Amino acid sequence: MTRHSGPIGVFDSGVGGLTVLSALQSRFPGENFVYLGDTARLPYGTKSAATVQRYAVNAATHLERHGIKLLVVACNTASSYALDAVAAASPVPVVGVVEPGARAALATGSRRIGVIGTEGTIRSNAYQNTLAHRAPSIEIAAVACPLLVPLAEEGWGDHPVTDQVARHYLASLLGWGVDAIILGCTHYPLLRPSLQRVVGADVRLVDSATSVADTVADDHADLLTSDGPPGSVRLELTDASDRFLRITRAILGRDPEDLEVVDIDQAKT
Amino acid sequence: MTRHSGPIGVFDSGVGGLTVLSALQSRFPGENFVYLGDTARLPYGTKSAATVQRYAVNAATHLERHGIKLLVVACNTASSYALDAVAAASPVPVVGVVEPGARAALATGSRRIGVIGTEGTIRSNAYQNTLAHRAPSIEIAAVACPLLVPLAEEGWGDHPVTDQVARHYLASLLGWGVDAIILGCTHYPLLRPSLQRVVGADVRLVDSATSVADTVADDHADLLTSDGPPGSVRLELTDASDRFLRITRAILGRDPEDLEVVDIDQAKT
Repeated sequence: MTRHSGPIGVFDSGVGGLTVLSALQSRFPGENFVYLGDTARLPYGTKSAATVQRYAVNAATHLERHGIKLLVVACNTASSYALDAVAAASPVPVVGVVEPGARAALATGSRRIGVIGTEGTIRSNAYQNTLAHRAPSIEIAAVACPLLVPLAEEGWGDHPVTDQVARHYLASLLGWGVDAIILGCTHYPLLRPSLQRVVGADVRLVDSATSVADTVADDHADLLTSDGPPGSVRLELTDASDRFLRITRAILGRDPEDLEVVDIDQAKT
Repeated sequence: MTRHSGPIGVFDSGVGGLTVLSALQSRFPGENFVYLGDTARLPYGTKSAATVQRYAVNAATHLERHGIKLLVVACNTASSYALDAVAAASPVPVVGVVEPGARAALATGSRRIGVIGTEGTIRSNAYQNTLAHRAPSIEIAAVACPLLVPLAEEGWGDHPVTDQVARHYLASLLGWGVDAIILGCTHYPLLRPSLQRVVGADVRLVDSATSVADTVADDHADLLTSDGPPGSVRLELTDASDRFLRITRAILGRDPEDLEVVDIDQAKT
């Protein structure tokens, strides 16, 4: 068993991936983490596969400069469109959020699974293909919900407008009799109050955060530090407007301690 | 009088600036245009002044390679945060949308002018300062409306959710007795049906598109071509996802003819 002393890199297009970081920290308190949010170029969810791949590889290359031992792509769109490209360009193991999210949904025992996400995530068919491969007999339906990220960023996670927008997007899934819905975007857990109200108590809302930590524990135990003092977290954003800092505080429940603005545009593979 | 044969460059963070391009084409049919939409890095409206300045100078540098004779910054956030930086870096005259928009609002004779725009545009105080400088006695109030761009991009310009969101954002302006509202974002004209319904028939909604053409005619007549055959339009986007192509078609009312995807990340000043 080899243990490495480098940090675990966590990458997202923005600050939604901090929900994944928090789950990893809770599970692996002795690890050091470096989180990169590409806030200067977000959102990824509306952009093409080619652009998302270029940005994701660029971000991974930047994180490798920190000597990371493992890279978690905590962005659903990047995991959907660019996980292979990032893995091919990366010297360390790479974990995405799609496979863990699909596992978590299947673990609920649902037979009719809905997937919601950005246009890029849904169009990529990454969740649909992963679910169908793992459990050929279940039924799957997917819906892109472009307005949910802006609503989460506006702080309207428990707001009548969000209820109305969610009812619009989720009508077809609810009419079809969905059992569980994968929140295929790291922003969506911020909308749980509205979403749960709209889908009702019988439909499970599944997010990837805890399941990503399970995957890291299962597949990369050799890289993990099991003892020692509490680890550190370094937070890097490519843009630190007041808006992103406000959302960061909302997710963390406190001010970030060690935050730096970085320019990664020029990082080359 | 010198007349140049180069095209007029028009730049926006995305495709909303096509509303400005259309007004320029109608007014100056003999001109050639090259339009750059930085769709790979939009939106600018949520990002910091430093990032917007970097992106806008980068875009201007790219357009100069086409030998443009004049640059129109058709993005309100870039005009608000970065017009001086672009002008300092540019060898050709630069026209923004804020000054023309302010002129158009004052031409209505309004005494109480509201300004709506992105967080960046409103925070910059560009419209507020320009209006106050030109007409010290008028009253001005400004409101950031972050959800309006996503709603316009979703095609919900005439939708009950947009009415509800607009009522939320505009309540303070309406309670204050606003006479005219500057649509301080090139996407907002796409929301006119909902916005006009919410503000009522007595409040004028003013956009910059026509007024930008007036400014070009007034201030840069020496650069314009007054005769000759109809000019051409070249359309460049930094990302061409289906989403952006759909919005482009919605604004132009047709498929774009001459569209190219360009990578401007590496353009240096």
